[in-house]
Amino acid sequence: MTAEIICVGTELLLGDILNKNAQYLAQQLASLGISHYYQTVVGDNIERLKQVIKIAIARSDILVFTGGLGPTPDDLTTETLADFFGVPLVENSEILEDIAQKYAVRGRVMTLSNRKQALIPQGAKVLPNSSGTAPGIIWSPISNLHIFTFPGVPSEMQRMWQETAVPYLKSLGFGKEIIYSRTLKFWGIAESALAEKVSAFLSLPNPTVAPYASRGEVKLRVSAKAGSQTDAEQLIAPIEQQLQAIAGLDYYGQDEDSLASVVGRLLQCENATLSVAESCTGGGLGQMMTDVPGSSRYFMGGIISYDNQVKVSLLGVNPQDLNQEGAVSRTVAAQMAKGVRSRLGTTWGLSITGIAGPDGGTLTKPVGLVYIGLVESNGEVQVFEHRYGQDRSRSLIRYLSACTALDLLRRKLLETR
Amino acid sequence: MTAEIICVGTELLLGDILNKNAQYLAQQLASLGISHYYQTVVGDNIERLKQVIKIAIARSDILVFTGGLGPTPDDLTTETLADFFGVPLVENSEILEDIAQKYAVRGRVMTLSNRKQALIPQGAKVLPNSSGTAPGIIWSPISNLHIFTFPGVPSEMQRMWQETAVPYLKSLGFGKEIIYSRTLKFWGIAESALAEKVSAFLSLPNPTVAPYASRGEVKLRVSAKAGSQTDAEQLIAPIEQQLQAIAGLDYYGQDEDSLASVVGRLLQCENATLSVAESCTGGGLGQMMTDVPGSSRYFMGGIISYDNQVKVSLLGVNPQDLNQEGAVSRTVAAQMAKGVRSRLGTTWGLSITGIAGPDGGTLTKPVGLVYIGLVESNGEVQVFEHRYGQDRSRSLIRYLSACTALDLLRRKLLETR
Repeated sequence: MTAEIICVGTELLLGDILNKNAQYLAQQLASLGISHYYQTVVGDNIERLKQVIKIAIARSDILVFTGGLGPTPDDLTTETLADFFGVPLVENSEILEDIAQKYAVRGRVMTLSNRKQALIPQGAKVLPNSSGTAPGIIWSPISNLHIFTFPGVPSEMQRMWQETAVPYLKSLGFGKEIIYSRTLKFWGIAESALAEKVSAFLSLPNPTVAPYASRGEVKLRVSAKAGSQTDAEQLIAPIEQQLQAIAGLDYYGQDEDSLASVVGRLLQCENATLSVAESCTGGGLGQMMTDVPGSSRYFMGGIISYDNQVKVSLLGVNPQDLNQEGAVSRTVAAQMAKGVRSRLGTTWGLSITGIAGPDGGTLTKPVGLVYIGLVESNGEVQVFEHRYGQDRSRSLIRYLSACTALDLLRRKLLETR
Repeated sequence: MTAEIICVGTELLLGDILNKNAQYLAQQLASLGISHYYQTVVGDNIERLKQVIKIAIARSDILVFTGGLGPTPDDLTTETLADFFGVPLVENSEILEDIAQKYAVRGRVMTLSNRKQALIPQGAKVLPNSSGTAPGIIWSPISNLHIFTFPGVPSEMQRMWQETAVPYLKSLGFGKEIIYSRTLKFWGIAESALAEKVSAFLSLPNPTVAPYASRGEVKLRVSAKAGSQTDAEQLIAPIEQQLQAIAGLDYYGQDEDSLASVVGRLLQCENATLSVAESCTGGGLGQMMTDVPGSSRYFMGGIISYDNQVKVSLLGVNPQDLNQEGAVSRTVAAQMAKGVRSRLGTTWGLSITGIAGPDGGTLTKPVGLVYIGLVESNGEVQVFEHRYGQDRSRSLIRYLSACTALDLLRRKLLETR
């Protein structure tokens, strides 16, 4: 059996959105050991969609559709499928109730056009959408053909895939031999440097080791093919240990770990708390820390001192230093970190001040110059200077600044153990 | 004439890489007024690639290939095309020289496998690759069929597209008519509700109006086909005005606008300033405000009062109210907004306190319950209650909370004008 991914949406043909769904589904199909040879993108057009279905059923046995399930008239996937196979649409009461309920919770009234989302082909099963209003279907209109439809919203599609499609495909016998992957995450080392360090592992047959880089972070994906996840994990474990040993402190976590979640765990181990003082990141560091559920146990809060007056009034930064050295300076970074730590009474204090751009750079203080202040549990303060380069975007500089601050704290917490 | 994008590469089928080339080419084709109805992804496999070519030439006149031009054996695009149309491959001397030269510059010797890259179908023109070694072709093997091949490396592909493909397509008469789109953005209305309000516009031929939704936001894309951008803008302008009039305050901006940038402009118009007090968003609201370059003109900063103690010590929230009503309550939201406004001495004060989940919800205060406090320039405070539903993720609840807070401020700023 081979699968085909069919993404429906004129916005894809206009290039308005990037087709992330195709990549996610491709990875998922691979992990279940389902080969897929074709991906097709087609617009919200009944005739062309029918042509695509005709071609797909001639070469594939599992058709995975995304998009075109919404309430608006240009959402045509469901009715076109029903029409193609000559099956009537029937209103599904559970879907209708579910949509009505979701609207009630959000204090909105269901509109007529939402009823459209409750129509599915006779004989199709509902593929429930727990986080959105547009459900999908699992349908076998003819023997040896399995059709799945998902909404185009990635978060909803992914949840539905995991909750319903995967168990269904396993019931069809897929996933007996699985590809199980673990992703090791690294910060503070370049992809090329890490790749050289672990070059011996990059040619392993099973598990395979592949490096990836994205936004300052480097990842190694370790993928094993095996009969069960346990078997795969046994293949991966020794390789993982060796890779971690080689990378040392540059390795910070794996899979769902983030720099913030790892820092959080380390703080909890020491019953330590953290507060942050942010200038150029404007709250991004606090947001990262609080992305982690339960972060209230160790993250007390912070002060967004975007304006210099706030640095003085709330963080106790010395106005003279501010004038003489400027807001983006070692001195101010240090005072910000000390200030927030004492104001919030936390074990650690972390500060960021820098020039995120696009404007505000000078010859001596170019865009991308960032100072990070860190006050340790013993009150000792350290300041780190980083230059991210003027060619980087404002949002990337802000993101890298926050991540680097967390990474510096992570390393300190590991040292002081 | 219609085009089709065909991306060749097994790595796309494995989900190892995201298909950014398809989005880039889609945007480029649209801007040249070339309709394209299909995108296909196929692996590095001769037979399947031939099937894809067969289908494509039956429905499209311009085939744009990416990938499969490299020196390795699994790069098959060029020879498969030649084979399909029964045309022999000939070694092209300029390509050979070019590759040899590039290798010389890099101090490397050309390998045999590189010679492969100099083979192109007889009668095909070279599509030079100024930044890489793999050139593409521009080829018309049969009348009214135009084939372009590009390497998969986005930077090389994009440069080649601009340098050679665009002039060639313009010489074919394209680019005389362009498709120009503008995206209108809305907050506080469901896609279905907006679609019904503007249903009369959804069937317009030119400009076309299409709705889509993402993470709480609804967009209407207005696309006009015209001889020039000015003509397109003239077609769009009246429709845009009518759509804005119908949507009223739910319309907040277009294209590059964000809720934060729009709020920023409104604050600047009044020489007003803003400070924020954040609990469940943990800095996300401040980050949104400071995403906008130049936001220091109106955004002073804020206090991340994640811990209740910080709400008391830095925001002056009444400890009794905290105990009696809880941190997630109208009273505390109001006191947080007042507190930050007076501490930072800003015109407006905005606060968020809520339960982002996944834990911490109760029957009376479920996950997704959020209070937003807003203190106006006249000192008057208002509190808004929102229930985002327990089915939504922590990150989505946090994101929607921050956006809604900005939207409430936006509406107030527009009212008080």
